[in-house]
Amino acid sequence: MAFTCTIPASPTLQQDDANVRITRWDFQPGAVTGWHTHGWPYFVIMLDEGTLRIHDGAAETDVPLARGQTYSRKAGVQHDVMNASPHPIAFVEIELKRPEAAAAIGLPEA
Amino acid sequence: MAFTCTIPASPTLQQDDANVRITRWDFQPGAVTGWHTHGWPYFVIMLDEGTLRIHDGAAETDVPLARGQTYSRKAGVQHDVMNASPHPIAFVEIELKRPEAAAAIGLPEA
Repeated sequence: MAFTCTIPASPTLQQDDANVRITRWDFQPGAVTGWHTHGWPYFVIMLDEGTLRIHDGAAETDVPLARGQTYSRKAGVQHDVMNASPHPIAFVEIELKRPEAAAAIGLPEA
Repeated sequence: MAFTCTIPASPTLQQDDANVRITRWDFQPGAVTGWHTHGWPYFVIMLDEGTLRIHDGAAETDVPLARGQTYSRKAGVQHDVMNASPHPIAFVEIELKRPEAAAAIGLPEA
């Protein structure tokens, strides 16, 4: 169903309000998130080049990604994610809690 | 009004569809974006540690940011952005074109 979790990935919460949750995830080689379901649409932004091994409950897929490469997924995605790279990697995950609030996303103007 | 542009920042478009525009911006030291207005709410995700110098039309502000640090702004922000770090930096910019579509953001499930 998922990877055998020996080394857990390390989440660092950056923002968690009514509109968005922003988390930086750091993975040692072989580290995993553990099986989870995404409740909100989300983006992933790779801070490092690396390979994510995705377990979708039935099969594993290795996804090579470049530094800065960004992808988005709908709410409802279920999987386990492992760092299949020989080196540590990190990515930032942005979850849109209230998509209709996306227009209101905002902090003090820079 | 803005910085004197000697070295332009370098944009690399990753995705541009009805819902989102995702661009990686690379800056040499001193490089600038040029004066611009943000038409959509957006996120910036730093790929590198560095200092962004923001010119808001009246004053300049140096904003030190960590690798992976992420912030969001509302549509309508106007400024010029310079890499005030002594080294090259990059960040990813995610613009939400149709906030109400945020719920539909999605690509093929991983």
